[in-house]
Amino acid sequence: MSSKNPINRREFIQKTSLASAGLVVSSTPSKKKFSRKPLSSLRLAFFGTGMRGQGHVDLALRRDDCEVVAIAEVDAEMIKRTKNLFSKRNLKLPTIYDQGERDYLRLLEKEDIDAVIIATPWRWHTEMAVAVMNAGKYCGVEVCGAFSLEECWQMVDTHERTGSHLFFLENVCYRRDVMAILNMVRQDLFGELMHLECGYQHDLRGVKFNDGQSPYDSGVEFGEKGFSEAKWRTWHSVHRNGDLYPTHGIGPVAQYININRGNRFLYLTSMATKSRGLHNYIVDHEKGGANHPNASVEFKLGDKVTTMIKTVNEETIVIHHDTNLPRPYSLGFRVQGTKGLWMAVNNSIYIEGQSPSHQWEAAAPFLEKYDHPLWKKYEQKAVGAGHGGMDFFLLNSFIESAKQNIEAPFDVYDAATWMAITPLSEQSISMGGQAMAFPDFTRGRWMKRKNSFAWDDSF
Amino acid sequence: MSSKNPINRREFIQKTSLASAGLVVSSTPSKKKFSRKPLSSLRLAFFGTGMRGQGHVDLALRRDDCEVVAIAEVDAEMIKRTKNLFSKRNLKLPTIYDQGERDYLRLLEKEDIDAVIIATPWRWHTEMAVAVMNAGKYCGVEVCGAFSLEECWQMVDTHERTGSHLFFLENVCYRRDVMAILNMVRQDLFGELMHLECGYQHDLRGVKFNDGQSPYDSGVEFGEKGFSEAKWRTWHSVHRNGDLYPTHGIGPVAQYININRGNRFLYLTSMATKSRGLHNYIVDHEKGGANHPNASVEFKLGDKVTTMIKTVNEETIVIHHDTNLPRPYSLGFRVQGTKGLWMAVNNSIYIEGQSPSHQWEAAAPFLEKYDHPLWKKYEQKAVGAGHGGMDFFLLNSFIESAKQNIEAPFDVYDAATWMAITPLSEQSISMGGQAMAFPDFTRGRWMKRKNSFAWDDSF
Repeated sequence: MSSKNPINRREFIQKTSLASAGLVVSSTPSKKKFSRKPLSSLRLAFFGTGMRGQGHVDLALRRDDCEVVAIAEVDAEMIKRTKNLFSKRNLKLPTIYDQGERDYLRLLEKEDIDAVIIATPWRWHTEMAVAVMNAGKYCGVEVCGAFSLEECWQMVDTHERTGSHLFFLENVCYRRDVMAILNMVRQDLFGELMHLECGYQHDLRGVKFNDGQSPYDSGVEFGEKGFSEAKWRTWHSVHRNGDLYPTHGIGPVAQYININRGNRFLYLTSMATKSRGLHNYIVDHEKGGANHPNASVEFKLGDKVTTMIKTVNEETIVIHHDTNLPRPYSLGFRVQGTKGLWMAVNNSIYIEGQSPSHQWEAAAPFLEKYDHPLWKKYEQKAVGAGHGGMDFFLLNSFIESAKQNIEAPFDVYDAATWMAITPLSEQSISMGGQAMAFPDFTRGRWMKRKNSFAWDDSF
Repeated sequence: MSSKNPINRREFIQKTSLASAGLVVSSTPSKKKFSRKPLSSLRLAFFGTGMRGQGHVDLALRRDDCEVVAIAEVDAEMIKRTKNLFSKRNLKLPTIYDQGERDYLRLLEKEDIDAVIIATPWRWHTEMAVAVMNAGKYCGVEVCGAFSLEECWQMVDTHERTGSHLFFLENVCYRRDVMAILNMVRQDLFGELMHLECGYQHDLRGVKFNDGQSPYDSGVEFGEKGFSEAKWRTWHSVHRNGDLYPTHGIGPVAQYININRGNRFLYLTSMATKSRGLHNYIVDHEKGGANHPNASVEFKLGDKVTTMIKTVNEETIVIHHDTNLPRPYSLGFRVQGTKGLWMAVNNSIYIEGQSPSHQWEAAAPFLEKYDHPLWKKYEQKAVGAGHGGMDFFLLNSFIESAKQNIEAPFDVYDAATWMAITPLSEQSISMGGQAMAFPDFTRGRWMKRKNSFAWDDSF
């Protein structure tokens, strides 16, 4: 998809709604039980205020158009840290729901809120998102992979039954280079897209293990003895072999090729290497060693998991999952079309007719020239926000979308589709690379839906 | 596999032979019908002296340990060009066999030769290699992909029946950086290998089409009206959809992880994008246009074909085939192990404990430090040889191996295995990404065979 005239966002959404009304396929997706008027200020709750949740809370507290009124969190230390964020700014403390893992249900019953952000361990995402939508609240949920296709359907079904919106909080869609490339894609610089690569190539050994007190690079403990993500995330590396974390890569790629909006994933195949990195890390660490209890843990997660996807529009995608080995961070983007390509790993672009024949050019001048209007507008506000500023844009879009109670740019169908990569890749790996088909979570609506992400500088 | 004490090549080959003698599985591979004593000079014939064959002839004519006595070639212009190579050096002209495509059979009958190099269009490789082995000649054959698994078996069977050796002429195994990385792999700098990438990413549009007179970037003709590779190679892009040219990538990778020598390919999956690049090239070319006859040709080859392989030792491999789109040349190597990785696209290396934490280092100092002994020894001789000098090493190794009549470093089992990627990828693509199993062409001998490639500076 390309357009040289990005249209006004509001106008676009109106047009899309009108278009949707004329749909042949599945024209009445939901009862819209919980429709409401736009709000000028949002009453917000958080489920989970660990390290990630605190990042969002901190950004929310800077704003004058939302109020964080309640928090569901079970870890006393994390509650303390979260409260400090309020105290630092002399803000009224939120009501705390800490009476067990399902105290969030009581929060949903008691609190007068408009929206919830879920930033709990992965195991809770779907259960909580379903409860939030059932309660008629605008639901933001952090990224993860699914455990099964059934839970993806459960989210979709709940949205369609309640009309409650789900915003899948994929921050990398807002990365500055990723958005500049989106701009270039839409201005047709790469031509018709053909092949894309992406992934999560991040040495997480110092995240999966720590000393139980500080989150990063501090030891070889996990589970009960671990801290922050090492408490729960590492278990997935013990038991599961698949692409556990596909969305940081696939989110941006889905924008480039309009997945669920004129295009969809058809099938994937996955392969995994043997598992060595996590065991070696424990054995070689000064706080570990061959006799450390964790040295006898068998990790099922292959050190490198590679997934290929074929789309209905005949693009191919490679996704890298590479979190157990020593390596520099790289999401490994490649965006290749009939006129040229971008490679993130060497920060280079080649555009036929513009670039010197058969030679790479530095990406930087292109990224500057095609800097996205959103970044131009909000650059100053984004300073200091997490992950190079992109977390500002993510929360901003969430809050603006929630205030208006409109469909998110990454909605429940995207959440279901992107999260489905994880169980499908587990299945493909376990069955010797067999091709696994993606369900069409949109029930055919992908043929008419339009990409609503970042066509202008509104949010 | 790693070794800090590369052993003498002759000693190594002796040891390997002794080890082979003790094999449980398939211990008597062949009758060795055509065994002979080492020669001090080699009588050589060429089948096919197009652009590629002429490159080899030119290198052979520089040597004092071989004589090019006969040539089978059907194209008058190419014969003329080849003869010029001899005249330039005041050398005796070879006997020419140009009486039709199978005149090479008459050459095999009539000429007193020790070895043949085959550099014909792909369609002839197996037929000719089988004939050469049946005639008891040492057989060098240029790289390509196979049409079927059966022809791969035919080469293997012929070798085993006759004892004639086949040298698969994969020049990229001798690329300077590729060999330095081999050195690093063997010295365990990357640790246990996990994931590898490679490919053939080369904008061949100006090779697949020309003006019928000059080989590169000169027009939009192919087939009867084309010149050199455009005469025949382009037909494969019209009719076939798969990784048509896997060996430049997989050859080096096979050395790194000892394929057919303690390891083997288990299965692959392939996916292809739609096909746009070749059609667009014809339409957009100043000598083409929408009304040019070739604008109505439907090209089956997807512009980007991606293949994943799983090995028995649980490494994964991604192979890129990308020859129809505008892009800078790149074989796209990635060699990743438990201790670090090399990425060719950004010319970078990361080695845990040596490199600054989480940061790439320039590959150049590593490549210099671990420069392979062969390159150190022959650097001056390689100057001016094709493809950055690597063609010198390839022909040198071929001639030295042929003189001694010993097993090639890339032998008939490697040729069969690497070439098999092509039909298997075609099958996987046509069947929606289904996993396709590799035959074990070694009939179990891979368990005991040893890698004999480049352990010292002999050849």
